[in-house]
Amino acid sequence: MQTKTEQPAQTGKEQSIRTYIHTVQYYETDGMRIVHHSNYIRWMEEARSDYLKQVGLDYDKMEEHGIMIPVLAVSCKYKVSVSFGQQVKIFVWVEKFNGIKFTVSYRITSMDETVLHAEGTTEHCFLNTDLKPVNVKKAAPPVYAHFSQFRKTKA
Amino acid sequence: MQTKTEQPAQTGKEQSIRTYIHTVQYYETDGMRIVHHSNYIRWMEEARSDYLKQVGLDYDKMEEHGIMIPVLAVSCKYKVSVSFGQQVKIFVWVEKFNGIKFTVSYRITSMDETVLHAEGTTEHCFLNTDLKPVNVKKAAPPVYAHFSQFRKTKA
Amino acid sequence: MQTKTEQPAQTGKEQSIRTYIHTVQYYETDGMRIVHHSNYIRWMEEARSDYLKQVGLDYDKMEEHGIMIPVLAVSCKYKVSVSFGQQVKIFVWVEKFNGIKFTVSYRITSMDETVLHAEGTTEHCFLNTDLKPVNVKKAAPPVYAHFSQFRKTKA
Amino acid sequence: MQTKTEQPAQTGKEQSIRTYIHTVQYYETDGMRIVHHSNYIRWMEEARSDYLKQVGLDYDKMEEHGIMIPVLAVSCKYKVSVSFGQQVKIFVWVEKFNGIKFTVSYRITSMDETVLHAEGTTEHCFLNTDLKPVNVKKAAPPVYAHFSQFRKTKA
Repeated sequence: MQTKTEQPAQTGKEQSIRTYIHTVQYYETDGMRIVHHSNYIRWMEEARSDYLKQVGLDYDKMEEHGIMIPVLAVSCKYKVSVSFGQQVKIFVWVEKFNGIKFTVSYRITSMDETVLHAEGTTEHCFLNTDLKPVNVKKAAPPVYAHFSQFRKTKA
Repeated sequence: MQTKTEQPAQTGKEQSIRTYIHTVQYYETDGMRIVHHSNYIRWMEEARSDYLKQVGLDYDKMEEHGIMIPVLAVSCKYKVSVSFGQQVKIFVWVEKFNGIKFTVSYRITSMDETVLHAEGTTEHCFLNTDLKPVNVKKAAPPVYAHFSQFRKTKA
Repeated sequence: MQTKTEQPAQTGKEQSIRTYIHTVQYYETDGMRIVHHSNYIRWMEEARSDYLKQVGLDYDKMEEHGIMIPVLAVSCKYKVSVSFGQQVKIFVWVEKFNGIKFTVSYRITSMDETVLHAEGTTEHCFLNTDLKPVNVKKAAPPVYAHFSQFRKTKA
Repeated sequence: MQTKTEQPAQTGKEQSIRTYIHTVQYYETDGMRIVHHSNYIRWMEEARSDYLKQVGLDYDKMEEHGIMIPVLAVSCKYKVSVSFGQQVKIFVWVEKFNGIKFTVSYRITSMDETVLHAEGTTEHCFLNTDLKPVNVKKAAPPVYAHFSQFRKTKA
């Protein structure tokens, strides 16, 4: 199935973002025989890392700029449980960005996108190596440019 | 040290709830040398299980009543990071309860309670063994009585 | 790069096994900024599940036969640490099999296979739904046939 | 209940080591409704950290001496599964020590010590801050003295 999300309309320099796929592992299940809810928080990190790498903001590059991206807050709403043997798609996009903080949103769906398993958000800021918040517009213009450009791209 | 939280004023049948203490493990740290944010979600579960057991609603008893308590939503705000070697206190209380759903709130603090490391919430409902939502007032009156009684007890 | 391991010589009905690849996640690192040693045990499970699925013994099929495969023992020797951002290959093969127990061996290497990160083993038996050990030759001949055939196939 | 293990016969300067107790968490269970085997490796780390702290070798002190203690190998044999709601005792002792490497052994039992759930070992060395192996006899005589003294103390 082709979806707008997987193949967004290309406008200018904007690039297509590949949707992240996670294969459920047995060690992620719990005594209810479904994935333990804490693992969705980890999946959001997996998808976020993959997204940031795709838009050119991988960990190594951030470190070159002396920038860390801690998690300030998370939220997740669980809709339909996920079991061992399943794969899920995780859609990621930058919801808000003001140069100092940003919010990432997530939708976790079945592979055919007909089932919404969960949706969530994470909030972040940028820290320098002294663990002080930085305004990336000044501290790391290339990172700022990337975030401004990709804010509205769903992965 | 005696604290108001650990030894709340006794009113009638209300019982004292012991505050949950978690000792940070090395495997809970990440490459930033602090506890990975996903583990706070697990700590909330630890503290919630301990709380429910203290008020007489331990897992085995719930199973006797044929009741499971899934997690519908989580949220957590991270304030001050926690490192290996530290211990934290986790305060737990039932914030809302209507017989069908309930919300639990958490405060994670340093042992002397001067540092707020994080605060969060989890939302839950009651399911029977067919995974159907149940109104515990009808399905399990003793469980309903417990929740009504302990709703406002901070642990 | 073509390797003997990835494309083993085909003999008769034997099929090619795709080597399992794991992408290191940030939540798998610890305070030494390398992957925590406990995660290698989980990676071995990931690779084992993938291998069993490839040879037609996926979880669902095993359940149809009423068979579970618990872990009786694990061992792992850590050679060269792995960091966030890396990918690793995990080679899997059934080392021993006597119809009642079997041993799986693992080699975890860099993507170009020049660095051996770790090697390990896991021991297993077959249990029926009463948690009693079963001889798969009698209890599930198709499973027995699979294991006998694929015993020496490295993945 | 007083046991020989918890209160070993005192000989000279040898001190009593408190046995480590772990309370099983729900997030540690898996789809078989028992503790996932990878968590035993984490429990061994919990018990080892607690033991090292009790004998005066806690993480902070090791760091003062510029010494890290990586894991070179692990092994674990699983005997009787553990379920949510249980507590286990973990006995720890230094099995071998030659100034460069050491081996720690573990026994995981029920609280009344009548059931052996698992037994395992971990192998370690000492690294300096350049990640080079060090002979602690030269590099950190107090650490060497501790290990030589406590080698045979079961916790």
